[in-house]
Amino acid sequence: MKEGLVQVYTGNGKGKTTAAIGQAIRALGRGYKVCFIQFFKKSESGEVKILKNFPNLKLLHPLPFYPAEKNQDFLKQKIETILPKISKIIKSENYDLVILDEINIALRNELLKERDILDLLKNKPKSVELILTGRGATKKIIESADLVTEMKEIKHPLTKGVKARRGIEY
Amino acid sequence: MKEGLVQVYTGNGKGKTTAAIGQAIRALGRGYKVCFIQFFKKSESGEVKILKNFPNLKLLHPLPFYPAEKNQDFLKQKIETILPKISKIIKSENYDLVILDEINIALRNELLKERDILDLLKNKPKSVELILTGRGATKKIIESADLVTEMKEIKHPLTKGVKARRGIEY
Repeated sequence: MKEGLVQVYTGNGKGKTTAAIGQAIRALGRGYKVCFIQFFKKSESGEVKILKNFPNLKLLHPLPFYPAEKNQDFLKQKIETILPKISKIIKSENYDLVILDEINIALRNELLKERDILDLLKNKPKSVELILTGRGATKKIIESADLVTEMKEIKHPLTKGVKARRGIEY
Repeated sequence: MKEGLVQVYTGNGKGKTTAAIGQAIRALGRGYKVCFIQFFKKSESGEVKILKNFPNLKLLHPLPFYPAEKNQDFLKQKIETILPKISKIIKSENYDLVILDEINIALRNELLKERDILDLLKNKPKSVELILTGRGATKKIIESADLVTEMKEIKHPLTKGVKARRGIEY
């Protein structure tokens, strides 16, 4: 990519991860290479079944499960060993677009340090587009990004007790 | 789909169409059938090159170009002949998910009437999930929807003069 930017999708509304998926599809359509890193594998999601079939897309799940479910120390250790690998992936320039899905949640749950994320952004090669998703993006992350959208919940059926639906929410 | 809802993605920020694409991918991964109606074909976009290859996804471009470019009367006539077809597609229940991409823009440009959109929502079969995108969703559309996200622009490089980028913005 000629001039890769840093995009952030945050806020409490639906559409952050799906926007990242859509962006991956759009980039693939232009022949770009994509690395899609989903920090928390919630389940065998609908998108995984499709995304795993694209030869130009690498899908990574650094953690086997959602943070609320498991031992915090284990997750912390695990993520610490993963960070250098992510940094290497970004710096390799093997991918035009690198997506760090739910990285803001990893920060919120104190599984990684804000400083480490800011370092990833700062040391990104010019050719690489980076996307960060997850509610609660910090002020410093927003400052370091080029494009930030807040997905603001105006109305959501889950808050009315409708359960997460297969094929829609996951 | 067991209980299809009406989703709206609106607001002035980036991520509305990409969220709809991501939602289409997620639904396809669950074996759902998708009809993706892009009201305004801006160009041969990145996503089109990918989406057109899925046998379970039907891609429609009712209008050959962006509304600002051309004769308003021609577009109006064209869209009037298309509305009954869209209504038929929704009611056929041949698709679990029907996406009306940029329909809010068609309304804003007075190419169709709010009443006609509200009719589409009201007469939707229970099994069909509907997604409407585009900035400027009206109050009545928001009232009629089950899930509404406002994509709020916090920061956008286009407002700083960066040009729309192939593979990212289209």
